[in-house]
Amino acid sequence: MPGNSFGHTFRLTTWGESHGVAVGCTVDGCPAGLELNEAAIQHELDRRRVGQSKVSSQRKEPDTVQILSGIFEGRTTGTPISMVVFNSDAKSSHYDNIKHLYRPGHADYTWDAKYGVRDWRGGGRSSARETIGRVAGGAIAKLLLATVGVHIFGYTLALGDLYARVIDEDEIERNIMRCPDAEVAAEMIERVEAARRSLDSLGGIVEVRARGVPAGLGEPVFDKLQADIGKAMFSIPAIKGVEMGEGFAVANLRGSQNNDPFVRRTDGSIGTVTNRHGGILGGISTGEEIIVRLAAKPPASIAQSQETVDQQGNPATIEVKGRHDPTVLPRLVPIAEAMLALVLADHLLRQRTARVQMPPTHADREKLEL
Amino acid sequence: MPGNSFGHTFRLTTWGESHGVAVGCTVDGCPAGLELNEAAIQHELDRRRVGQSKVSSQRKEPDTVQILSGIFEGRTTGTPISMVVFNSDAKSSHYDNIKHLYRPGHADYTWDAKYGVRDWRGGGRSSARETIGRVAGGAIAKLLLATVGVHIFGYTLALGDLYARVIDEDEIERNIMRCPDAEVAAEMIERVEAARRSLDSLGGIVEVRARGVPAGLGEPVFDKLQADIGKAMFSIPAIKGVEMGEGFAVANLRGSQNNDPFVRRTDGSIGTVTNRHGGILGGISTGEEIIVRLAAKPPASIAQSQETVDQQGNPATIEVKGRHDPTVLPRLVPIAEAMLALVLADHLLRQRTARVQMPPTHADREKLEL
Amino acid sequence: MPGNSFGHTFRLTTWGESHGVAVGCTVDGCPAGLELNEAAIQHELDRRRVGQSKVSSQRKEPDTVQILSGIFEGRTTGTPISMVVFNSDAKSSHYDNIKHLYRPGHADYTWDAKYGVRDWRGGGRSSARETIGRVAGGAIAKLLLATVGVHIFGYTLALGDLYARVIDEDEIERNIMRCPDAEVAAEMIERVEAARRSLDSLGGIVEVRARGVPAGLGEPVFDKLQADIGKAMFSIPAIKGVEMGEGFAVANLRGSQNNDPFVRRTDGSIGTVTNRHGGILGGISTGEEIIVRLAAKPPASIAQSQETVDQQGNPATIEVKGRHDPTVLPRLVPIAEAMLALVLADHLLRQRTARVQMPPTHADREKLEL
Amino acid sequence: MPGNSFGHTFRLTTWGESHGVAVGCTVDGCPAGLELNEAAIQHELDRRRVGQSKVSSQRKEPDTVQILSGIFEGRTTGTPISMVVFNSDAKSSHYDNIKHLYRPGHADYTWDAKYGVRDWRGGGRSSARETIGRVAGGAIAKLLLATVGVHIFGYTLALGDLYARVIDEDEIERNIMRCPDAEVAAEMIERVEAARRSLDSLGGIVEVRARGVPAGLGEPVFDKLQADIGKAMFSIPAIKGVEMGEGFAVANLRGSQNNDPFVRRTDGSIGTVTNRHGGILGGISTGEEIIVRLAAKPPASIAQSQETVDQQGNPATIEVKGRHDPTVLPRLVPIAEAMLALVLADHLLRQRTARVQMPPTHADREKLEL
Repeated sequence: MPGNSFGHTFRLTTWGESHGVAVGCTVDGCPAGLELNEAAIQHELDRRRVGQSKVSSQRKEPDTVQILSGIFEGRTTGTPISMVVFNSDAKSSHYDNIKHLYRPGHADYTWDAKYGVRDWRGGGRSSARETIGRVAGGAIAKLLLATVGVHIFGYTLALGDLYARVIDEDEIERNIMRCPDAEVAAEMIERVEAARRSLDSLGGIVEVRARGVPAGLGEPVFDKLQADIGKAMFSIPAIKGVEMGEGFAVANLRGSQNNDPFVRRTDGSIGTVTNRHGGILGGISTGEEIIVRLAAKPPASIAQSQETVDQQGNPATIEVKGRHDPTVLPRLVPIAEAMLALVLADHLLRQRTARVQMPPTHADREKLEL
Repeated sequence: MPGNSFGHTFRLTTWGESHGVAVGCTVDGCPAGLELNEAAIQHELDRRRVGQSKVSSQRKEPDTVQILSGIFEGRTTGTPISMVVFNSDAKSSHYDNIKHLYRPGHADYTWDAKYGVRDWRGGGRSSARETIGRVAGGAIAKLLLATVGVHIFGYTLALGDLYARVIDEDEIERNIMRCPDAEVAAEMIERVEAARRSLDSLGGIVEVRARGVPAGLGEPVFDKLQADIGKAMFSIPAIKGVEMGEGFAVANLRGSQNNDPFVRRTDGSIGTVTNRHGGILGGISTGEEIIVRLAAKPPASIAQSQETVDQQGNPATIEVKGRHDPTVLPRLVPIAEAMLALVLADHLLRQRTARVQMPPTHADREKLEL
Repeated sequence: MPGNSFGHTFRLTTWGESHGVAVGCTVDGCPAGLELNEAAIQHELDRRRVGQSKVSSQRKEPDTVQILSGIFEGRTTGTPISMVVFNSDAKSSHYDNIKHLYRPGHADYTWDAKYGVRDWRGGGRSSARETIGRVAGGAIAKLLLATVGVHIFGYTLALGDLYARVIDEDEIERNIMRCPDAEVAAEMIERVEAARRSLDSLGGIVEVRARGVPAGLGEPVFDKLQADIGKAMFSIPAIKGVEMGEGFAVANLRGSQNNDPFVRRTDGSIGTVTNRHGGILGGISTGEEIIVRLAAKPPASIAQSQETVDQQGNPATIEVKGRHDPTVLPRLVPIAEAMLALVLADHLLRQRTARVQMPPTHADREKLEL
Repeated sequence: MPGNSFGHTFRLTTWGESHGVAVGCTVDGCPAGLELNEAAIQHELDRRRVGQSKVSSQRKEPDTVQILSGIFEGRTTGTPISMVVFNSDAKSSHYDNIKHLYRPGHADYTWDAKYGVRDWRGGGRSSARETIGRVAGGAIAKLLLATVGVHIFGYTLALGDLYARVIDEDEIERNIMRCPDAEVAAEMIERVEAARRSLDSLGGIVEVRARGVPAGLGEPVFDKLQADIGKAMFSIPAIKGVEMGEGFAVANLRGSQNNDPFVRRTDGSIGTVTNRHGGILGGISTGEEIIVRLAAKPPASIAQSQETVDQQGNPATIEVKGRHDPTVLPRLVPIAEAMLALVLADHLLRQRTARVQMPPTHADREKLEL
């Protein structure tokens, strides 16, 4: 059964294995007329790339994207946009001696249970390299969203119990943890270094936000905006929890505390005084900032010796060699942003069919204001 | 854009408004040959029904389900199963005086922003009555899952900071909170009563589990089992957070603590010593128990006076009359079970196409063991 | 696997068996704000109904439609529109003595091969009653299309070698054959009467047209407008051939004969001098009239004695009793119209996402012209 | 809106423009464990390739396929199979002087009407090069079908009024018309040569057959086997008519002539004495040979001078240079085979979810027979 596509109107399909020939993706449904070139996509891929810093895996890949179709004279034409990144630094030999063992916390066993066969080299399709296609597709989604004024950004909110105390958007890309609090970032980096030295890994929380989302996106029942965001985030490797707005904290609130009063904004539009709802009510965007948090487990690949079994179920001891991240958090940021962008781009287009009489677009409104 | 269907191979479509003629659903893709009658579905609907107890809304509806198609001589035929529940106790007059006001925490404003029109009677399609179709469809999914030995159950884990300390499955249906800890249930009921008296509402956490899920369900990329479960749970009204296995707690763990060692079980199959992963690795089921928690916000409908605006953005004060739940938790249990059942039934069928040579089915294995 | 839905943005799902409780459908994705009431749908159902005339089956069903959801104050709300028609004149006893026999030309055998079980009463889900849901859904599609000026109509073009020689749209509904040529209609009726007397049935050709279709509908590769129309028509029971524009006659043409020259119309828009292409080029509508022809086999149910086998493969003789049509042509007309309307409504909405900058709508253009 | 994918369980997505960097496709949903290498795919691409003979376009492309993912140790792994063919002989200069003109019979105008922009080089996405992805995907579908004994083949049935009088399967690949009748093939070639000399093109009919299709494939309502085959065939460029079994000839038949009597075959299975139904009844395969015919229009690209308009609607004269086919028939054969294979592979997998208790597979049956 196909399971490698995401979205209904703006649809991304990714393909490729960690140690195969290449990884890539196709975006089908991107409207015609969007300005697009490889630089915008490369920028996001560079943010995602490994080997960026001492807190990440040491695999060296330039991850250079090539657009193979769908663009003509610098603009999308409405046809599928195919993109490819060839693999260049795959060291499969690292995996030779563990190919019959089930790495704890990894998909080796479940993959065998499902398919009966498995490309064991570098995690195959379950490798983080699969997310290259997501980030490439998400880069296009961001460009589409930018045409209506939507801005998406994410950051490392917490590493263990170390929480950013300040959200300074300008700080995010300045430190290798992508933490919006410079001071806490320094503490985080120390802790990651220590984990690496003790051959261990660390979990944490990433937060992603979308500003400027028009009210009205999302479908009220199964395809609620939060449902599609939930699916998007839980489809990222290592994610064990997702929350929006107040999230799990709502369990401790009363209705009278949690309801956000509606108010007329100075520009005449309707908004809420507070934003505990996180930008979505009844599955539909309110126009307030969308806020999502995702909990990432500590990477399963650790160099410590661990107990496990082989494919026959015989007890075995395993040491996972290779070039692994002691934390995924900074690299998770662009991936989570990409997934949020994909959901919003999809629903932006879906919204165009909600009414017999289409509501005026952003561009129409700008024209009217002239 | 359609948004009222869930699932790819086992697909549920729901329809209907709170104060319309009826609510209902169609299940398309249920395999032929499943024993099915209205009693099994009615049983689940009765669990979901309002007016059950002093902790729930006082709306009285028998919610009697009628199967209109897809069954012949007590078995499914492979054709769509259409089910309907006629609405009988709709009191739209309760909503007359607030139809132009935006209830805080509700979908009134976003609905207008999306569609330009809205059935304001009883919340229209955003009413909890929409979940009748989910529970009816989920009841069939449960029957299908039972044929391979899957058992699903849920319960109220926490009301505010009151957490069940014991998980006694037998206790769940004995108390009106559906709390698996009789002692804590009593405390919860007191707290709900107090909230009702103070015209307020309370949030909490529901936990759902699936036992006996065969290893191998779920697709490794976008349609990961946790991604589809995440979408399913976030599509339920009022849910602001979802987590699986250790959930948000993974943010505080090290890889060496969080990885579950593999082991050969006494029956020869492969399992894990611990189950911090919550039954899913790499998006695919491991055969261990699947564990999901969802955080429900306090119901937005409270009888207290609240500040808001009308459709024109003019400030207004609102008091939401009607028959509302001070907590959704006990009614949320069968809904969350239904959604988990729908996801698992879908992936159970999807798994049948994973291999050129189909793996033997449960029934085949039983035959071989004879 | 679900197979009872049609369309991507405007999606119809039908359900129900010939001798079950009811038949019906759900339309998901109809935009909000469309004026709609039961009369418009009933009108189309009445056109489809059996027992209309001496050329059709004598089963008497009022086929009264009830809308159960999706409408508020005479307009669609954007939520699913559920419709039901209860079965009232089902005479299952007619089928009692043939339930273990495979009727030649029918789906009895293939149904058993597929599902292992079968509702043998009146053809179950393979009955022509299934098309009630199509006609009801198509009626809504027609209303949506009418808002942009699309008009769809069909007629009986040929019964055997009797071809309409004149296409007089006003004549169509005046004769029971729905033939646009009054003279030929009379000959057709005679021939049908003769076939009925000889316990036989007759095939023929229906033609359907759509006028006013805006240029630009259809996707250029797999979801070409002709591909979706082809699927729509071949999904109607008894259809063995479909052609558009010149159809099979193109096999005998040269490029220089078949190409339609482009020309500027008097209103400034671009069109073609001739319309051999039938309104679609490269899978996309040109704005010229869309013309589709479908060949319907003679109904398989004939009262003559036929050779066949029973479920065990034993030879048997069968006489198919019941109330059957000697020709399906007049009843096929509203069904084919409905299917064409469903395809066009779907692509009308799909077209709204083709460009970053949406092209102005019909309504916008009207406004601009004021 | 995406429109570049085909199939539900076995899903092909194609991408690429005639004069872009490359064309290619992704197959998602191919089961794990299928033996696969590039040679099998290259074989089919070579059959489709232009420059094969004097009856085809003179564009020279090796069309060498590269598999980029989804294969490990000579077998599919269940992950998406990405394939690419780089473009090498694109001569865009041929199109420079006609880029603002609308070629009669082509998609230039409709493309502009839809997207507002268009890659005019070589027909862009509407070029026959798009079908490379279909043939590559179809090659995999054929391999999957071969595991259960399905064999697909096609041929040129008619060029104009020249019809093959003999269907000799061995002859098909021996002549450049792919006509199964050697004598008629020679006449066809002469006629094509004459058409080329007169700067014209010719239409015709291709027939495709599938043998060994198990009974039970296809869904009884919208996703009837003939509906999906109809869509598949009409999605091929230049197709104006499709028929199955007796096709349009049914219009002239009586039920007593057209019904195929059921019979027990010598191997105990059930079949029909005749095969006027063309292997499908009620949308489901009967096990008899599936027979499809498609009418292809004469290629629109002719070197004769033609009347048309430019993008502004101004009258213009056009001469379409470039390397074009005077007939598409021989190249259409592998494309039509590929599309039929895609439909059957999809429904072969879909059938696995039709029953609670899966029917034994081909492999199981073989095992039982041992």
